[in-house]
Amino acid sequence: MKAVVFDKDNQLKLVDNYEKPIPQKGEALVRVTLAGICNTDYEITKGYMGYVGILGHEAVGIVEDVNGEDKSLIGKRVVPEISYGCKEPNCPWCAEKLYRHCPNRHTLGIWRKDGVFAQYFTMPTEVLFEVPNNVPDKQAVFVEPLAAALEITEQHHIKPYEKVIVLGDGKLGLITALALNAQNLDVTLVGKHQNKLDIAKAQGVKTSLLSDFPIEKKYDVVVEATGSVNGFETSLALTKPRGVLVLKSTVATGKELNLAPIVIDEITVLGSRCGQFPPALRLLQSEKVDFSPLISAEYSIDNAIEAFEKNKEKDTLKVLLKI
Amino acid sequence: MKAVVFDKDNQLKLVDNYEKPIPQKGEALVRVTLAGICNTDYEITKGYMGYVGILGHEAVGIVEDVNGEDKSLIGKRVVPEISYGCKEPNCPWCAEKLYRHCPNRHTLGIWRKDGVFAQYFTMPTEVLFEVPNNVPDKQAVFVEPLAAALEITEQHHIKPYEKVIVLGDGKLGLITALALNAQNLDVTLVGKHQNKLDIAKAQGVKTSLLSDFPIEKKYDVVVEATGSVNGFETSLALTKPRGVLVLKSTVATGKELNLAPIVIDEITVLGSRCGQFPPALRLLQSEKVDFSPLISAEYSIDNAIEAFEKNKEKDTLKVLLKI
Repeated sequence: MKAVVFDKDNQLKLVDNYEKPIPQKGEALVRVTLAGICNTDYEITKGYMGYVGILGHEAVGIVEDVNGEDKSLIGKRVVPEISYGCKEPNCPWCAEKLYRHCPNRHTLGIWRKDGVFAQYFTMPTEVLFEVPNNVPDKQAVFVEPLAAALEITEQHHIKPYEKVIVLGDGKLGLITALALNAQNLDVTLVGKHQNKLDIAKAQGVKTSLLSDFPIEKKYDVVVEATGSVNGFETSLALTKPRGVLVLKSTVATGKELNLAPIVIDEITVLGSRCGQFPPALRLLQSEKVDFSPLISAEYSIDNAIEAFEKNKEKDTLKVLLKI
Repeated sequence: MKAVVFDKDNQLKLVDNYEKPIPQKGEALVRVTLAGICNTDYEITKGYMGYVGILGHEAVGIVEDVNGEDKSLIGKRVVPEISYGCKEPNCPWCAEKLYRHCPNRHTLGIWRKDGVFAQYFTMPTEVLFEVPNNVPDKQAVFVEPLAAALEITEQHHIKPYEKVIVLGDGKLGLITALALNAQNLDVTLVGKHQNKLDIAKAQGVKTSLLSDFPIEKKYDVVVEATGSVNGFETSLALTKPRGVLVLKSTVATGKELNLAPIVIDEITVLGSRCGQFPPALRLLQSEKVDFSPLISAEYSIDNAIEAFEKNKEKDTLKVLLKI
């Protein structure tokens, strides 16, 4: 089958004859129809996680086979959560379906499991979720970053009267602002690019250019979605005493960082990663969010290398791969 | 009156003829009997906060006068919380008695208010707390750092079955470990000094030398009380996924810090500073903690400069000033 592979020589390659995977006991075989490139995929091509294999963890596909007694998923359109756990009886993470924290997890295209930039992938059936009929592939392919945005509300109770800032108007910031706004929270997206801010504004999110935005320590929740040290420092300067700074992007500081304001103002810095899919699918089904304006380009898998190049460009938001 | 002053020429001085303060409306005049030197006092003598005035915020004293109708505090032995707020009707911090977060607060010996290393100080009566009869001055003088330790349990619900590590066996670590242990929590104090660890061990705290302690990501709550970047990194390496790292000391990183593990493991970094006094006084009254082994030396206020020198020595824990 065709597959986009990061190989042991640190080369990104389109391979035509990768072996089609065989579903293990409890797994389904999924034929991919549409996939999305995430910045993590790009990070992996720079050596992140030391991963070698098929890239990709954002996808929609059709189940073609199931290795197990319950064949009901066959023919269904599904999206995969990105990790599955050890499911050992004494694993507290798996018991709570928090597979993404299981110490022995496998993660699609990131850690010990071939990813979705291929004609087929396999995943355990319990981490495959059927896509509602009214949700087209081009929305469903956003379910993973949407689940990651909703993870914030799983980890922390944002009260209806609290003021939320999302800092950064890239993919992560836009999806987070749209997701929180769709839950009727009081969200303002602050960024540097009017054209990107306008995508959120068109769907009812309050927005501001950073240069026009007064930096005051008065917001209950600030989501750092810039991925830069300056963004972290600005986020701290916006978080009110006893407020919550949600750290969504993996920041390598690259310079000295003063943590004293965290102590003095008793800030909570909340690391936040991936989320569960059912709430994200529910939100997509409600049609309260529309991610199509975030699609910058679509490529056939045959042009995957070109798609990765496009993804690197400064103004690109989401690049999709048709498979 | 006698007072220990950090003056505008950045000199630490014992002054004999400092003007005795006059209590403002709502304030009491307190005659100091015993005070404690905190590392913050030492930081101020290096320029922290740009403070100029009488140093000190840990004290016990006797109320000599009250400027107000209710004179009931006169003659009482009291301890002062370190901050008082603006008490404006629309200040949410003051409404919740969180004076320590009021943006217009005054803080004893740190910010806009003369401190306690003097024969007298004044403070609003609502931040003065009577010391129970069975609590001697030498225990009561620890109420402020004890309240800061208990602040952790105000901010975060530590469940009885959770495993808590306190990293660092200085004053802060010892007081925190003793305070949490006295609340029947499952605490282990980890440090580098057997003689300091033994102080906690004698009061029933589990202890370990850092060199003997396996660094595993399995603790629910880790209190960083070393004040060093290495301590922060070790704390991160001990905190389990979705666990809480309590940041108690103000760390200036001084080197590049990788925040990615906070996101990947969804760690909560909880900044934690001062606390309210009533729970701390209740714990002192119960006699479940004994801070006398932490007293390294006592000096008369006449030898305050020498006391500050002693405080700087490597193995010193608490230095007291008799006034």
